[in-house]
Amino acid sequence: MGEFELIRRYFASAACAAGGEAVALGIGDDCALLAPPAGEQLAISTDTLVAGVHFPAVCDPFLLGQRALAVSASDLAAMGASSVAFTLALTLPDADPAWLEGFARGLNQKAQECALALIGGDTTRGPLSMTVTVFGTVPAGLALTRSGARPGELLCVGGVLGEAGGALPLVLGERQADAAVAEPLLARYWSPQPQLALGQALRGKASAALDVSDGLLADCSHIARASSVALVIEAERLPASAPLEALLGAQRALQLKLGAGDDYVLAFTLPPEHLPELSSNWPQLHVVGRVEAGSGVRVLDAKGVDITPRQGGYLHFMESP
Amino acid sequence: MGEFELIRRYFASAACAAGGEAVALGIGDDCALLAPPAGEQLAISTDTLVAGVHFPAVCDPFLLGQRALAVSASDLAAMGASSVAFTLALTLPDADPAWLEGFARGLNQKAQECALALIGGDTTRGPLSMTVTVFGTVPAGLALTRSGARPGELLCVGGVLGEAGGALPLVLGERQADAAVAEPLLARYWSPQPQLALGQALRGKASAALDVSDGLLADCSHIARASSVALVIEAERLPASAPLEALLGAQRALQLKLGAGDDYVLAFTLPPEHLPELSSNWPQLHVVGRVEAGSGVRVLDAKGVDITPRQGGYLHFMESP
Repeated sequence: MGEFELIRRYFASAACAAGGEAVALGIGDDCALLAPPAGEQLAISTDTLVAGVHFPAVCDPFLLGQRALAVSASDLAAMGASSVAFTLALTLPDADPAWLEGFARGLNQKAQECALALIGGDTTRGPLSMTVTVFGTVPAGLALTRSGARPGELLCVGGVLGEAGGALPLVLGERQADAAVAEPLLARYWSPQPQLALGQALRGKASAALDVSDGLLADCSHIARASSVALVIEAERLPASAPLEALLGAQRALQLKLGAGDDYVLAFTLPPEHLPELSSNWPQLHVVGRVEAGSGVRVLDAKGVDITPRQGGYLHFMESP
Repeated sequence: MGEFELIRRYFASAACAAGGEAVALGIGDDCALLAPPAGEQLAISTDTLVAGVHFPAVCDPFLLGQRALAVSASDLAAMGASSVAFTLALTLPDADPAWLEGFARGLNQKAQECALALIGGDTTRGPLSMTVTVFGTVPAGLALTRSGARPGELLCVGGVLGEAGGALPLVLGERQADAAVAEPLLARYWSPQPQLALGQALRGKASAALDVSDGLLADCSHIARASSVALVIEAERLPASAPLEALLGAQRALQLKLGAGDDYVLAFTLPPEHLPELSSNWPQLHVVGRVEAGSGVRVLDAKGVDITPRQGGYLHFMESP
């Protein structure tokens, strides 16, 4: 089966999904063509997931399809971009119809949720991996970068952290848990919800933003470095997670909220005057700290004692699944 | 080493390469930002190369770096696009500095040649593979698609075909040859020259175009199907290749000119009135056939006898390196 035929057959509904007028030419030629509206810039991000590194080699292909797209779409949210389209480079050991059907169904469903149209790709034979490149549009000058944080601003997150990391022992089959605990954690791991609407709402308001993919501490250090400021995280303000705390206890839950990746929740800095309006529209938004002059990231407990872990986040060349 | 640091360290010169004003934000944030000039569309293509499938698992990383970028840049040429930028998703079994240095040097050199700036990417651990996504701009309405060929037009190619396919036994070490024969063939395999300037010269002239990556027969069938026409290839008009014919003989050379991929030469259909001007500027351009009413692709010998091979080109799920 040729690559276009393979892509068309299994990914047809994603190819037809709303990409809107910005998609001038979709799958089937040497290139796709995008036509961003006048005054808009095109936001682009690429992520690769490798079997045995970023997901278990044996897993549900439907869930994997959802996750593969969500991880990349989250980068559009982090820039405040509106979603437009994506390409899929899929490397497979063989063309197993049952696997492809499940993977495509998960991918297509997430593509519909995120309003992303499949505009091209490549299918190759080899060890299982996938590279998704996403495209969005953002008015020129309004993209949320990492470099605008200023002392006196608030540090906020768009939702609960640590749950995807807490799901890992369940994903890997190292632990069992009651459904009431396991299901919400596994959903966070396999089907992250890219915060696209929140990202767009932060245009012109947040001074710096990113999505928490490497862990809050590591990702905050990216903002601190890019903005030449210090970030302070107040540990007791990190949103609670009942299933996470039930599974692992409060101490380990805090470690995961600070250090685990894969939640794909937005973290951003915000001038205080924008908080009331945003909070009323986004109840899941939490202030978790503040921006100060200086450098680096510190974590303080309720008494103001520095409890910053030595090693925060993870780096991709050291990661384990 | 973090992914940004890895990318920055080895691919710094590609990140600084000319991407021109269309690159609004490069490596280091959640997304890159491109700002196509008013009236221009963005052309996008993605290609994956997998070790042991698209290139030998043990090979010169410098040559591999050149080839990885050239293969994708050729898709921009096939659309008539001007090159702007690329992303690199690189999966490596380990971070071997000598390998990375060689790969990056080859990639950077080809990026300079093709005027492509590195704007983002991902580095992951896993079996060796790489996905390159390229970005170019083309005035709205002038992209070269596959669907505009009309009966009465000429079928042309932008250069010699079959040489990259002829190099394969040399690449795989299955055969030896004198340097006079081996060197030009190996250069065609490892360092394809994307015909970007020719593609841009064909804007508003060629009625359909693509780059020959799957073999002339298979790629012509893509044009025939997309344009609802028949294409006739006149075998004796296919450009000669002294090294290919010296290595393999005339009969096998013809098979490779028709069926071997990897040359990344443009094939296109052209209203005859445009031929004189183009031929004078592009001496390597060859008329190799014509467009007729009907469907499919036929190959005729010098006497007009149909010599169409049963199986033309290759499809990616059946390919061997």
